[in-house]
Amino acid sequence: MKVGILGGGQLGRMLALAGLPLGVRCWVLDPSPEAPARAVATHICADYHDRSALEQLAQTVDVITYEFENVPVASANALAERRPVYPSPRALEVSQDRLSEKTFFQELGIPTPRFRSVDTLEGLRSAVEWIGLPAVLKTRRFGYDGKGQYLIRERDDLERAWVVLGGVPLILEEFIAFERELSVLAVRARTGEIRCYPLVENYHREGILRRSLAPAPRTPSALQERAERYARAILEALDYIGVLALELFERHGELLANEMAPRVHNSGHWTIEGAVTSQFENHLRAIVGWPLGPTEARGQCAMLNIIGEIPKIEALLQIPGAHVHLYGKSPRPGRKLGHVTLCEHSEELLVPQLTALQKLLP
Amino acid sequence: MKVGILGGGQLGRMLALAGLPLGVRCWVLDPSPEAPARAVATHICADYHDRSALEQLAQTVDVITYEFENVPVASANALAERRPVYPSPRALEVSQDRLSEKTFFQELGIPTPRFRSVDTLEGLRSAVEWIGLPAVLKTRRFGYDGKGQYLIRERDDLERAWVVLGGVPLILEEFIAFERELSVLAVRARTGEIRCYPLVENYHREGILRRSLAPAPRTPSALQERAERYARAILEALDYIGVLALELFERHGELLANEMAPRVHNSGHWTIEGAVTSQFENHLRAIVGWPLGPTEARGQCAMLNIIGEIPKIEALLQIPGAHVHLYGKSPRPGRKLGHVTLCEHSEELLVPQLTALQKLLP
Repeated sequence: MKVGILGGGQLGRMLALAGLPLGVRCWVLDPSPEAPARAVATHICADYHDRSALEQLAQTVDVITYEFENVPVASANALAERRPVYPSPRALEVSQDRLSEKTFFQELGIPTPRFRSVDTLEGLRSAVEWIGLPAVLKTRRFGYDGKGQYLIRERDDLERAWVVLGGVPLILEEFIAFERELSVLAVRARTGEIRCYPLVENYHREGILRRSLAPAPRTPSALQERAERYARAILEALDYIGVLALELFERHGELLANEMAPRVHNSGHWTIEGAVTSQFENHLRAIVGWPLGPTEARGQCAMLNIIGEIPKIEALLQIPGAHVHLYGKSPRPGRKLGHVTLCEHSEELLVPQLTALQKLLP
Repeated sequence: MKVGILGGGQLGRMLALAGLPLGVRCWVLDPSPEAPARAVATHICADYHDRSALEQLAQTVDVITYEFENVPVASANALAERRPVYPSPRALEVSQDRLSEKTFFQELGIPTPRFRSVDTLEGLRSAVEWIGLPAVLKTRRFGYDGKGQYLIRERDDLERAWVVLGGVPLILEEFIAFERELSVLAVRARTGEIRCYPLVENYHREGILRRSLAPAPRTPSALQERAERYARAILEALDYIGVLALELFERHGELLANEMAPRVHNSGHWTIEGAVTSQFENHLRAIVGWPLGPTEARGQCAMLNIIGEIPKIEALLQIPGAHVHLYGKSPRPGRKLGHVTLCEHSEELLVPQLTALQKLLP
């Protein structure tokens, strides 16, 4: 079975690694000659708009997927005329624009922070009137890892926010003083079967995911059920095939949808060692039309990202049960270079390992 | 970190797969253009005696290991003059010859079946007198998967056995009516630290491993301790670095050493999902000089080899929690093409899955 992936970053790399034992070989299309996935997949080094590269990919593989959501929809649509593209390009379209994404959530009855489209400074002023402060001004498109966002705390920030971000379509969102950030990963097979992983508790700093705890500690089953209901609604509305991540805020026992990612997700990396079937394997199983694997957790897990620089590997491996995953990327401030997963039988056993690991990953 | 591997079969492939997330890249030397490891490692396609290929390997990598024990000792020795070779070529020498291997076990006080060197038909007759029948006549060198063996049940078989195997150095071994075949995998770091995996119960048919259960069910801790004592004695006597497998017969509560493999081993494949650290990762950690990882089992596991032909993958993946590993080899009778691992919380949960899997792997 041959799978094409738009994007050859660490997600593409881990997809290809998961595919190898299953007899699934991957081809990645990525403009970077340093694409991390090239170590385990055939690399087509070209721009995402490159017609002949897209044609080469379509000719080679049986099915096509993507590992990041800013793939050009036109390219995905062109490929979809030649080969199955999962998740469908419609999922890309929805998630590439924060306005259409939040509108889509609302149409499905999934609660979100209040939001309003902003195109002018005047529009920003009136959106602030309606939403209140603090509020977050965001570009509607191409935001990731906290980029393209401005937190407006008071009225005086308003013009500065406009200077920084104005000129492209924007959205103003209510700032949520959440208790926790959570995410749910779900996977839908070609048969329509859906499986959900346990809720994950995430901690971001400077807009970048730093740590995930899975299953999210002290989580009532009602919360898990609600998150699964939301994920199912999205998967079914989009006739979605593959893994989807839905990021949520928890506040006063409620869940508010923040955003979705139509792909495998950083908050699911713990599933490699921590779940019966990893998100990467289940995504592949879904898109090639194979049965899904169990999504149960195998213990209490923590995943920490390695960001900016890599500590000495000997020090990381000294921590009993630390599973180290490096992506083969050169260090750069704020760049995700790898992650470490811990998986123990209980939270009590996990805490000392996590404390030791956090000292190495400041 | 760059690791060279003599041999690019499935063991080399799984070593290379384990290395990728740790930043360990592998180069494999293997004469077959179809070497399974080529999908994840750089393949030097050449004979094991090829001096310029050996030189190329030594120039490229930091440390060298091997994935099968019939590597020419002269090649390993030549490489050892240029780069560290682990386990040391001495381990190769001992395990390549059944006579030196069993003699070595005896010198360390490790019980073995009775044995005697055989070089002539007359010698065979007198060995049979001493050992009794049934007994197994084996070539001293290059036997694997039951090849190069002849079971002598009665005196009438004796001349036929000589006709089949005579002409090369032989060994006659007492036939052990064992209760179980077991194996213990152990790993020794450059620091001298040793860790042992739980005993594994193995089932062979036609000389080929079919099934492993790990940890070996209903195994008293005294048996585990004895197996570990034997493994430690071997590792220390050879100043061994890396993973070693010791195959044992259990009879009347005693353990008799059958043979050792100075490498990762088929009866350790369950450790990929079933142990905290896989045998492949621990072998790499040992030879590159990193700390060893925990060897505890994560549950009750079963590993079944896929031999000769591959069932439909959809059927295999239909079994909840079946982890499928294919090696990218073309089907051929008696050939190991892959394996499937099951890992559950208890033997009770394991049995129904195992029953379902055995129906697919006749």
